[in-house]
Amino acid sequence: MAKDSLNQFFAFLWKAKEDVAEEEDHMHVVAISLFVTLLCACIVLGHLLEENRWMNESITALLLGLVSGFIVLVTSKGASSRVLQFNEELFFIYLLPPIIFNAGFQVKKKQFFRNFVAIMLFGVVGVFISFAIITVGTRYLFPKLGLTGLQISDYLAIGTIFSATDSVCVLQVLNQDATPLLYSLVFGEGVVNDATSVVLFRAVQKFDFADFTALEALLILGNFLYLFLTSTLLGILTGLLSAYIIKTLYFGRHSTDREIAIMTLMAYLSYILAELFSLSGILTVFFCGIVMSHYTWHNVTERSRVTTKHAFASMSFIAETFIFLYVGMDALDIDKWKTTSTSASQSLGVVVILLVLVLVGRAAFVFPLSALSNRIHKSGVTNISFRQQIIIWWAGLMRGAVSIALAFNQFTISGDTKNPDHATAITSTIGVVLFSTVVFGMFSKPLIGWLIPVGHGTVSDSDEAPPSPKGGLFFRPDLQAPLLEDGNRRASFYDGVHFTIQGMGRTSSIQALLGAPASTIHHFWRSFDDSYMRPVFGGRGFVPIVPSSIEEEDHN
Amino acid sequence: MAKDSLNQFFAFLWKAKEDVAEEEDHMHVVAISLFVTLLCACIVLGHLLEENRWMNESITALLLGLVSGFIVLVTSKGASSRVLQFNEELFFIYLLPPIIFNAGFQVKKKQFFRNFVAIMLFGVVGVFISFAIITVGTRYLFPKLGLTGLQISDYLAIGTIFSATDSVCVLQVLNQDATPLLYSLVFGEGVVNDATSVVLFRAVQKFDFADFTALEALLILGNFLYLFLTSTLLGILTGLLSAYIIKTLYFGRHSTDREIAIMTLMAYLSYILAELFSLSGILTVFFCGIVMSHYTWHNVTERSRVTTKHAFASMSFIAETFIFLYVGMDALDIDKWKTTSTSASQSLGVVVILLVLVLVGRAAFVFPLSALSNRIHKSGVTNISFRQQIIIWWAGLMRGAVSIALAFNQFTISGDTKNPDHATAITSTIGVVLFSTVVFGMFSKPLIGWLIPVGHGTVSDSDEAPPSPKGGLFFRPDLQAPLLEDGNRRASFYDGVHFTIQGMGRTSSIQALLGAPASTIHHFWRSFDDSYMRPVFGGRGFVPIVPSSIEEEDHN
Repeated sequence: MAKDSLNQFFAFLWKAKEDVAEEEDHMHVVAISLFVTLLCACIVLGHLLEENRWMNESITALLLGLVSGFIVLVTSKGASSRVLQFNEELFFIYLLPPIIFNAGFQVKKKQFFRNFVAIMLFGVVGVFISFAIITVGTRYLFPKLGLTGLQISDYLAIGTIFSATDSVCVLQVLNQDATPLLYSLVFGEGVVNDATSVVLFRAVQKFDFADFTALEALLILGNFLYLFLTSTLLGILTGLLSAYIIKTLYFGRHSTDREIAIMTLMAYLSYILAELFSLSGILTVFFCGIVMSHYTWHNVTERSRVTTKHAFASMSFIAETFIFLYVGMDALDIDKWKTTSTSASQSLGVVVILLVLVLVGRAAFVFPLSALSNRIHKSGVTNISFRQQIIIWWAGLMRGAVSIALAFNQFTISGDTKNPDHATAITSTIGVVLFSTVVFGMFSKPLIGWLIPVGHGTVSDSDEAPPSPKGGLFFRPDLQAPLLEDGNRRASFYDGVHFTIQGMGRTSSIQALLGAPASTIHHFWRSFDDSYMRPVFGGRGFVPIVPSSIEEEDHN
Repeated sequence: MAKDSLNQFFAFLWKAKEDVAEEEDHMHVVAISLFVTLLCACIVLGHLLEENRWMNESITALLLGLVSGFIVLVTSKGASSRVLQFNEELFFIYLLPPIIFNAGFQVKKKQFFRNFVAIMLFGVVGVFISFAIITVGTRYLFPKLGLTGLQISDYLAIGTIFSATDSVCVLQVLNQDATPLLYSLVFGEGVVNDATSVVLFRAVQKFDFADFTALEALLILGNFLYLFLTSTLLGILTGLLSAYIIKTLYFGRHSTDREIAIMTLMAYLSYILAELFSLSGILTVFFCGIVMSHYTWHNVTERSRVTTKHAFASMSFIAETFIFLYVGMDALDIDKWKTTSTSASQSLGVVVILLVLVLVGRAAFVFPLSALSNRIHKSGVTNISFRQQIIIWWAGLMRGAVSIALAFNQFTISGDTKNPDHATAITSTIGVVLFSTVVFGMFSKPLIGWLIPVGHGTVSDSDEAPPSPKGGLFFRPDLQAPLLEDGNRRASFYDGVHFTIQGMGRTSSIQALLGAPASTIHHFWRSFDDSYMRPVFGGRGFVPIVPSSIEEEDHN
């Protein structure tokens, strides 16, 4: 009998706990349904607004998110605006990796490495300058507005949160095919400055700034170099391993699915391993993408090539849209707005101060560092004109989901805070992100059109994996067409392009030997790649059997 | 001062809570790293074991999971074997939908609808028969082993848990291209019997079986019909909506990414909406896949077609491998084994009883219902031979992750249980799943090879979306080759096949009018489809502008 009543007790307990679990599950299903529906709406709206020069996909998603958040707020009578709480893990573990990997996978490698010095200047030195200006500025100005509850570590965190460019926003505003130099500079900066801000953010949380010495500054620098090199190396090694595995085992003979699956999984593995070892996952997965597009992509079958190119781009597209929708819906987070004790004018003041500091902080390094970069590259290959400097300044002003995620990390405990000044920090971060994305974002396309008329862009190089029609705004008929038309013809077409450009590269690199050192490095890299790397890891023209589809099928 | 100390208090609280959150985050990252690494290992091993007739991908993944679970158990000194706890939500919300959608997307539609009556017989009547035998059998035999703690509702739950075939396992064992009739029968049954077991499982948890009347039985039947029809309708409507949106807006003109994204998102939307309305998501997403492959797939550009076909197949492949790995790792769940109070011989007895009942329960409906089906289809088109009946019986014996998920739902509270008999129910479910997947699975390929020698299979129909090289074992050179070779040539090639077969279909359907009613239905459906559906929703030969890639690019 005792056992029976025990069983009844367990049954009761189980029922009660199950009801709670079921309720939670149901809310989750509701949230997913809403988000997927809104994502579909975003895509359709984005398509309809394609021709509009003021709008882009991120602004559409952000506004749609705001509107839906408002509707949820009204229908729930002010109880809640959030269907899903902003979740750092969801953002850093699931949404960010496909975006950055795809960027590395589709980036124009030659353009990127040619501008490497300028990118490093912007991404490292620039972030430190911007960080110093924002930290000092807020430390000096916030107390004047009556915001006294923040400590020195909070101001340092605010400095790192607002000093880094959001690479996801850059992808929306600049186009790789229309303005390759600007894209590689600003997006490259965005990737590198992630590593910088990770180091800075950790340093801010760890070091005791009461007795800050020159030694500590050196430690931060050393830490940065270590992080940069190890993260890059991990990405390159994972990429090479994937190339080696696919080349050696030659999956395609049996299954296209396996090739695609192993490429996707190993790309993700590079990111998650970097996170596991507390490195910069963004740097790692970016370099993994570059290596995969240079070696692995050429070792798989034609079908896998088409599939990976478009599937990665689509995943990235969905993740980007999701992030902006998410930020939009989260903006009306009523709990934070209630917790903050500042008045409306104070809040506005904080947002304005932050925006001005972001503008000033960025101007303070873009123009001097561009001049420095022009002085280093005397050859004029990557000379950054003043008009281009203005665009670099403007296009890097947007702050996005990374800022929000870092602010949540610094100022909340699992998304909640009871400290009114911390709540203010969160709400003003959201304010800055909304304003910068919508207003700065809206003026970007017209500004670029005004400063750099069509046809005035830098000559783009074709010696790359074909670009994806990202955002769908600019097609490159010369490279897109063959992909659709004819698999075999395409291969030969590409080989043609390849050899032409390689030939050109060799001629010009002899001249370059006398002038710019960048081209020489490129030339040596090409020789090394052709002699040692490609025979082992594959790559264009180095795959053992050309995957001629018909032959392959016949053998099975 | 009060504010300062309050701030310090919050800082302390925040630090403590953050440490816990960080610890959890880190464990999560470790788990993901391990899983992704093991997934890569599974794919490589699966490739190397390709030629082995005893192994398949699911057995490899299951064994690899067991081995890793054992290593974790040993290295953690028996503290834990689970890196990730089995999570119903992860399974039902994220892993199952891509698998079932892909099955619908790649299924041979003609074959499926031709065998519709037999599939419904197996999937509905069969499950009820099997359910009755297993429930009565366990109710009678378990107390004889000393297992007295289970109530009548538990026995009914065990009946539903073990009466349904696991459609994921079926995909691994049967091959659509080699044995299309068997595949469509057993896999179709697997999809339909999910709806049946959802109804049964809910009925078991809801109804009071103390005063079970004929009215209640009728209610269950009515409930089933409602669930079946609404789920199917939802899937068809979502599929048609996606076709209509893509045909009307014609995304491809601007962006391939958008087409792929909207197809993926709407497929998932159908599943999550079904879950939202408490329908059978599996049925919904299966029919959504069928409709999408019939209409939507033909409305997108060539690139999107190649990409969706292979990307969906790869997603499904990753999800399948993940599930088996997961089940394998979870099998050594030490807590459950500790909680169960039964001896080793008792546990073995329970597993043996369950396995015998599964064998008997399935035999009790496969052979009589096959005879019934043969009697209904007198024409002989879908006559099921005795050898085929044996394979249908054998290939449907495997129980997989769905059984485990349902067992966790019935016998645990968020994965934990303190009741020893409930723990026994969980451990023996795991035992049955492991044994049936590994042992029954291993003998499946040799059994099929022995009973149906190559070339003895039913003639396959070609009037379908090209099959994906699922599992990579069987290629169909006639349909695969053109996909790789030449987009334009391929389109005309397909149109040729299409019209030929349509012509054949029309001739034979006049003869069929006198004989089998199934062909007549098919003929009427074709006329209806061509006159009313395709002009609105697109489909092969009904897309407004043939997406000739070059023209398209030139317009941009």
